[in-house]
Amino acid sequence: MKALVYNGNNSVSLQTKPLPSVLHPTDAVVKVTKTTICGTDLHIRKGDVATCSPGRTLGHEGVGVVHATGGSVSRHKPGDRVLISAISSCGTCEYCRRGMCSRCATGGWLLGNAVDGTQAEYVRIPHAESSLHPVPEGADEAALVMLSDVFPTGYECGVLCGKVQPGGTVVVVGAGPVGLASIVTAQMYSPSRIIAIDTDPNRLEVARKLGATDTIDSSGGSAVEDVKALTDGKGCDSVIEAVGIPATFDLCQELLAPGGVLANVGVHGTSVDLQLQNLWDKNISITTRLVDTTTTPMLLKLVQSGNLQPSQLITHHFKLDDMEKAYETFGAASKHGALKVVIDVD
Amino acid sequence: MKALVYNGNNSVSLQTKPLPSVLHPTDAVVKVTKTTICGTDLHIRKGDVATCSPGRTLGHEGVGVVHATGGSVSRHKPGDRVLISAISSCGTCEYCRRGMCSRCATGGWLLGNAVDGTQAEYVRIPHAESSLHPVPEGADEAALVMLSDVFPTGYECGVLCGKVQPGGTVVVVGAGPVGLASIVTAQMYSPSRIIAIDTDPNRLEVARKLGATDTIDSSGGSAVEDVKALTDGKGCDSVIEAVGIPATFDLCQELLAPGGVLANVGVHGTSVDLQLQNLWDKNISITTRLVDTTTTPMLLKLVQSGNLQPSQLITHHFKLDDMEKAYETFGAASKHGALKVVIDVD
Amino acid sequence: MKALVYNGNNSVSLQTKPLPSVLHPTDAVVKVTKTTICGTDLHIRKGDVATCSPGRTLGHEGVGVVHATGGSVSRHKPGDRVLISAISSCGTCEYCRRGMCSRCATGGWLLGNAVDGTQAEYVRIPHAESSLHPVPEGADEAALVMLSDVFPTGYECGVLCGKVQPGGTVVVVGAGPVGLASIVTAQMYSPSRIIAIDTDPNRLEVARKLGATDTIDSSGGSAVEDVKALTDGKGCDSVIEAVGIPATFDLCQELLAPGGVLANVGVHGTSVDLQLQNLWDKNISITTRLVDTTTTPMLLKLVQSGNLQPSQLITHHFKLDDMEKAYETFGAASKHGALKVVIDVD
Amino acid sequence: MKALVYNGNNSVSLQTKPLPSVLHPTDAVVKVTKTTICGTDLHIRKGDVATCSPGRTLGHEGVGVVHATGGSVSRHKPGDRVLISAISSCGTCEYCRRGMCSRCATGGWLLGNAVDGTQAEYVRIPHAESSLHPVPEGADEAALVMLSDVFPTGYECGVLCGKVQPGGTVVVVGAGPVGLASIVTAQMYSPSRIIAIDTDPNRLEVARKLGATDTIDSSGGSAVEDVKALTDGKGCDSVIEAVGIPATFDLCQELLAPGGVLANVGVHGTSVDLQLQNLWDKNISITTRLVDTTTTPMLLKLVQSGNLQPSQLITHHFKLDDMEKAYETFGAASKHGALKVVIDVD
Repeated sequence: MKALVYNGNNSVSLQTKPLPSVLHPTDAVVKVTKTTICGTDLHIRKGDVATCSPGRTLGHEGVGVVHATGGSVSRHKPGDRVLISAISSCGTCEYCRRGMCSRCATGGWLLGNAVDGTQAEYVRIPHAESSLHPVPEGADEAALVMLSDVFPTGYECGVLCGKVQPGGTVVVVGAGPVGLASIVTAQMYSPSRIIAIDTDPNRLEVARKLGATDTIDSSGGSAVEDVKALTDGKGCDSVIEAVGIPATFDLCQELLAPGGVLANVGVHGTSVDLQLQNLWDKNISITTRLVDTTTTPMLLKLVQSGNLQPSQLITHHFKLDDMEKAYETFGAASKHGALKVVIDVD
Repeated sequence: MKALVYNGNNSVSLQTKPLPSVLHPTDAVVKVTKTTICGTDLHIRKGDVATCSPGRTLGHEGVGVVHATGGSVSRHKPGDRVLISAISSCGTCEYCRRGMCSRCATGGWLLGNAVDGTQAEYVRIPHAESSLHPVPEGADEAALVMLSDVFPTGYECGVLCGKVQPGGTVVVVGAGPVGLASIVTAQMYSPSRIIAIDTDPNRLEVARKLGATDTIDSSGGSAVEDVKALTDGKGCDSVIEAVGIPATFDLCQELLAPGGVLANVGVHGTSVDLQLQNLWDKNISITTRLVDTTTTPMLLKLVQSGNLQPSQLITHHFKLDDMEKAYETFGAASKHGALKVVIDVD
Repeated sequence: MKALVYNGNNSVSLQTKPLPSVLHPTDAVVKVTKTTICGTDLHIRKGDVATCSPGRTLGHEGVGVVHATGGSVSRHKPGDRVLISAISSCGTCEYCRRGMCSRCATGGWLLGNAVDGTQAEYVRIPHAESSLHPVPEGADEAALVMLSDVFPTGYECGVLCGKVQPGGTVVVVGAGPVGLASIVTAQMYSPSRIIAIDTDPNRLEVARKLGATDTIDSSGGSAVEDVKALTDGKGCDSVIEAVGIPATFDLCQELLAPGGVLANVGVHGTSVDLQLQNLWDKNISITTRLVDTTTTPMLLKLVQSGNLQPSQLITHHFKLDDMEKAYETFGAASKHGALKVVIDVD
Repeated sequence: MKALVYNGNNSVSLQTKPLPSVLHPTDAVVKVTKTTICGTDLHIRKGDVATCSPGRTLGHEGVGVVHATGGSVSRHKPGDRVLISAISSCGTCEYCRRGMCSRCATGGWLLGNAVDGTQAEYVRIPHAESSLHPVPEGADEAALVMLSDVFPTGYECGVLCGKVQPGGTVVVVGAGPVGLASIVTAQMYSPSRIIAIDTDPNRLEVARKLGATDTIDSSGGSAVEDVKALTDGKGCDSVIEAVGIPATFDLCQELLAPGGVLANVGVHGTSVDLQLQNLWDKNISITTRLVDTTTTPMLLKLVQSGNLQPSQLITHHFKLDDMEKAYETFGAASKHGALKVVIDVD
């Protein structure tokens, strides 16, 4: 079969590999129909992710058809259309019981990282019982690929951790795919204001289309004053960091209203300077989270009921044979106006 | 009347001042019977607290008898014995409604800071209706002084923010009065382990007497390894910072279990280095809070029922005339083995 | 001044009364500009409400202008436009601190019940500081009258108690004004389905316009089967009872999904038969609540931001002089297609 | 092997049966070392439980040693000492994900009901991965049998549903094993008062030994007045029904403070009369729950740390050969002063 492989040296390429097979009774093998590329895949390509070795098939997002199942998989059977979760979870270890599936003792983020992933014609899914979700009849499968990772991430790490509330004020720093997913899912709780901050006017325009009530181009240097002006001088109740560098985290600290939450979504590579002398008496909290994908079944219901349209984030489609070109496009997202690119495998 | 006054220049002295009177219909004047000294008073003496000017009567803790009341005070009447809350709150502004009384639009930490305080024979209490609490019949009034500030602080900012849970693991860094109050009130939720960390062996011994299951002298330099050894290598679910310097905050970051909470109680004067590169995917949270004293009525019930013995923190008694000596003793707490000193005013 | 007075004997009439004045430092007198009639006023007229004696001016909803204030009222001053809350609350008693303002030791539902109410040119408001809310600049005051009682009731007693959640299923039994307010405010949490049940086709049509995804005329007798058919045979996660008779409560019990909540909003005059033999192992809960109006400030923000349009419930307008006619219209609501009627006082 | 079998006709007897074997990859077979009898087993004997047919081996509680495991069981291996949960749960179905393991799509209360149970030398455990718990080194295994059902039931259905809080007031109606487990675990949250109500003076004496602050013999007929006298006339914040008949549920309704919770633990066979005319405006809730055993790992930690001593409920020991006598003793619990009887199988 064809698979997109990480070669080390800042390179990926489409290669031929043998079909995966069921190794454990809890496994399933899925024939992939749609997949996508994540910002994390670009980090892997750059060599930033130590857990992922050259030779690995990339990809942790996708939709497909069950091809084979192990002896203890009863919820899914060959022929079933399924959504693949970025996080593999056993459902029974201490962390899974507490809802921290990202820390599953025998799972977590495995696909396209510690085991071969979804940017291929077939993929082996560990802990298939809880890591695959039935695709509802008649669903738009390209849209559902957005539920493998980007929407649960924006929702769990941004909106839930950020305690977005009816009538509250929200600011999202960074309007890339995950920040936009936070902007879209924040609306599930009817905040009175959702402010998007970015330096790319195109992304700010998308943010507004997707429901931001206000947008601020932070290149101007007055983002703090602008947010204060929009919030009676208080700052925001929910501040969502969706970039992952010290500068944006610093900005987020200054945007916090008393009693607010700074929900960090971004992947950080260095420490940051926490202004505890200003924050110690402000009744705030700062949260971190790796997506656990525990909310995927609920998000699926909202897609079915029409409350959520994840296809809004899709800007490009490619065939699996054009996978390398897809990486180029997504890797220069700003130049191409790219948000999420869908790979049609079949 | 006699009052302990901040003179600037690192000096306090007992002076004569006129009796306070009711200025607003919501005020009460209370004849103080017991008061105490807080670490914050020492900070004021050093000139660290910009909001407190020379000439101010210090003190934000105490018990007394209502002497006079304004026209809209109906819950308390002259002759009633009352506990004075460190935080004055109107009960009706936006912050009070949200339980953030420390941010009350016309209250907050006023006593011994923005208005004259409790280290005197009489004190005017703004927003008396919600800032005074009836003393239960037969209560130990010296013990109740501990409910003005130190117990609500240890409980609200440490135990509640730290989400102490049955079966969970707790570590308290700093075994001064507030840290000890956290250790005592953490037991209200039956954690499986409460670890106390300090550099003073005497305070660690007190910590153990008051319910710490384990104590660690951090002078040894192996506190992180020691905590890991006591917690299956995981760290603690609730990490309570009760000192307020970068070194202890740094230690706390390393003691966090995945999914844990770092509850900051300490007053910080500088920024700290947050190890976000290690924490971003660990599902943790960091909280800050200034005591709101919203839990004082509940703590009073537990004192009455015998579940809580706040007098355990009292090590010394002084008369008001010996107030300056009391400051010396409390100011050199380690030397005198002092925790909380009670001033008997009458 | 003119006032609508309850005469006993199933009669109300417009009479002349002296202007109210400030009796306590915490009072304000408000010149009423808009008011409305509640279903409860009809109950009073019938003699069903023992706490309300003949001679009482009715009405607990309204908007107006502050005319005079007591000495301890600082948040509102003469000339301010204010929304009147149906519940008067001191903000400082034990129940108010716990958010149960309906049980306020010196407040609760007083207006148009234990003291003269808002269906008059002027009204005295006890505990004005927390029982009046500033009207935002440029607001539609007729719409805001809906925030005195009907919207907080539908939201607090129905939606909040009913734990409406993103992706959840909701059924509201009874599509009168309060049921409709539940249907509107349930949407603040993005449930996947909101089913309205009533016997009046006109009200069901309104329900659909205001956001119900499905409507069921329960005259048909198949409401239970119909709801099961819409919810994969499970019943609903949130079941809101907005009528107040045994038959509708019985229906609600049968509509509960495992793990669901039955939120009772209706005023009940008799006991009901609870099918505990079917429910004991179903992990459900049943809640009751009298509106506390603690969410009014938040609802005001959502009206301002445009997320909430309470004027959707207004079907008729009357002048104060036509108050008796307004009672007739609202008293025969079904015949007149009436939901809420607004009385323009000035 | 020997097994205690339900014969129908109000009869159970010790019989010889073949050893169970692994039927599914998710199964384990456990050699039972300790088991016990539950009140539910007596209901089965009387023919009250329709799901349990004659021929069934009874018992859903126990501790043992893993004898054999299916191919997908990785957490437990032959020779491991394990605690058996009364509820079998897959960990991955919709209900398990929501923590309602009692409703597990392929599990729930199976043992000694739909499949052969633990009152035997060996038992097959479905969904072994999440339905067995490792026994900590050196633990008292007889005490741990109390964690199969009675302690999780008292804690989850009584204390957690009843929202027992620090400083709150609790009343438990029914001081049998489950009621006593509620009394013991309620203390994990430091309520100010725990009142036990029963008609058996012996059980009330045990209740007091296990931590009830007050006991009331309801034969006297003044239980409501007595509880009001102990709670400033308010009733209790947490009312736990641990009997399961209309008379005790009726009593519970009258014991509710405003804002309180009635947590039903008892198994009810008929409907009850809910006094909604008194409760509709009292901000109360009523909860039901079948034990989900989701808290067993946490309770195990508290047993290990010494915070919980479940052996306090054990009054009798029997050998498996004396199983029929054990049923007689437990069946006439009051006469024998029996709480829980432990069966030593090996």
